[in-house]
Amino acid sequence: MEYGLYHGCGNSFYIGFYNDNIDYKALSKKICNNVDGLILLKENPLTMLIYNADGSIATMCGNGLRCFAKFVYDLNIVKDLKFNVKTLAGNIEVEIKSTNPFISSINLGKPNYSTSKLGIDVPLDELINYQYDENIIVSAVFLGTDHLVLIDYEDYEIAEKIARSTIFTKGINVNFVKVKSKEKIYVKTYERGVGWTKACGTGASSSFCICNRLGLIGPKVEVEVDGGKLLVYKDNENIILEGPAVTIKEPLL
Amino acid sequence: MEYGLYHGCGNSFYIGFYNDNIDYKALSKKICNNVDGLILLKENPLTMLIYNADGSIATMCGNGLRCFAKFVYDLNIVKDLKFNVKTLAGNIEVEIKSTNPFISSINLGKPNYSTSKLGIDVPLDELINYQYDENIIVSAVFLGTDHLVLIDYEDYEIAEKIARSTIFTKGINVNFVKVKSKEKIYVKTYERGVGWTKACGTGASSSFCICNRLGLIGPKVEVEVDGGKLLVYKDNENIILEGPAVTIKEPLL
Repeated sequence: MEYGLYHGCGNSFYIGFYNDNIDYKALSKKICNNVDGLILLKENPLTMLIYNADGSIATMCGNGLRCFAKFVYDLNIVKDLKFNVKTLAGNIEVEIKSTNPFISSINLGKPNYSTSKLGIDVPLDELINYQYDENIIVSAVFLGTDHLVLIDYEDYEIAEKIARSTIFTKGINVNFVKVKSKEKIYVKTYERGVGWTKACGTGASSSFCICNRLGLIGPKVEVEVDGGKLLVYKDNENIILEGPAVTIKEPLL
Repeated sequence: MEYGLYHGCGNSFYIGFYNDNIDYKALSKKICNNVDGLILLKENPLTMLIYNADGSIATMCGNGLRCFAKFVYDLNIVKDLKFNVKTLAGNIEVEIKSTNPFISSINLGKPNYSTSKLGIDVPLDELINYQYDENIIVSAVFLGTDHLVLIDYEDYEIAEKIARSTIFTKGINVNFVKVKSKEKIYVKTYERGVGWTKACGTGASSSFCICNRLGLIGPKVEVEVDGGKLLVYKDNENIILEGPAVTIKEPLL
């Protein structure tokens, strides 16, 4: 098969070369049986396209981009350990930190806390430690996509209700964080429209942003997710997400 | 999707519950796009069935059985850490050694070196350090399936030719071993009818049997394969294969 199979912390992807003549919306629906998406490579400039398993297009995906990095490095499409990848969410810097096991980092840029950017309908500029209801305090950040963060709140069943709350006019992804130490957090992410995931790169990174801003953690943390471990840290004002990618099967080229 | 997705050292499998009304030959051909096979669970007694991606039935698969063990443990189908699984190759003892990360061992039984069992057409009872041609020395063992072992020989291109040699009347799987120390070997396996694999559990275990019998290694070794690491050791005369299984996605039940 011309698509390889890869995963990063439990997020799984077919990856292959883009071809103008293929209806990828139909193909991804056909082949992604319990695989999260189909990633296509375009060259000059190096570009990543992602189709979700339901045939829709995703703008970016942190775990997918690390898998994409493994694909282009293993196939000698890139020779350097640092390179840029064009995505529908803009150019992203990738750095390969280790090739065996394969660990790479991606630069997610600066977090944006503006409620208008997040599409949050409240008369506040930011939502930091906002009393959502009697028992629930939430914070929100945009880091490539919209994320809500709840700290030390374990009633996971409210996630779907919050994600659909009318104050979040575009819906929102919901992250439940347990702060274990200044250097370690656990994050469980409910993605709007997907449900519970084993690992959400932007969710882990957004949780880092909020906890760091609130002074609960330092500038570099290990983020435990249900599918493995990620590292998130600051480089000046930018947020760097680092983690593994595993080849389950190479493509037959 | 009612089938979860799992992998063990790069061998990937869909796993779900057996249903009498499904044509699994057709289904596995349809859904296993670059996934190695479809594993079905039957209960009372606990039974594993495997269909290869091409729709054919496999009798047993070490990496698949470890993934099956994770499936039945995570879904509370077994409560104990030790249990037996019925396969087309007989009953196999499974022991879960660790749940996070998930590591289990399977008992592959006693190796059999008989050329008649292996279907080898030479006037010898066993093929141990057999001069296959001027440059190549081979040894053979049956451990659930037929394996040939070449030690410190790195011309991998001969694998297919050997696998089809007329002296191996049923064809044979070919393992290239590098002995790194008394406790560590590297094994690369060419499966007849499949080609190069990222991990072959019986191949790793057969390589252990031959190297141990030749006195090159001790009774317990780490086996490095292209998809990860396995542990192989002796328990009395039985060969135990131990290694990881990873959930990429749980089934939707």
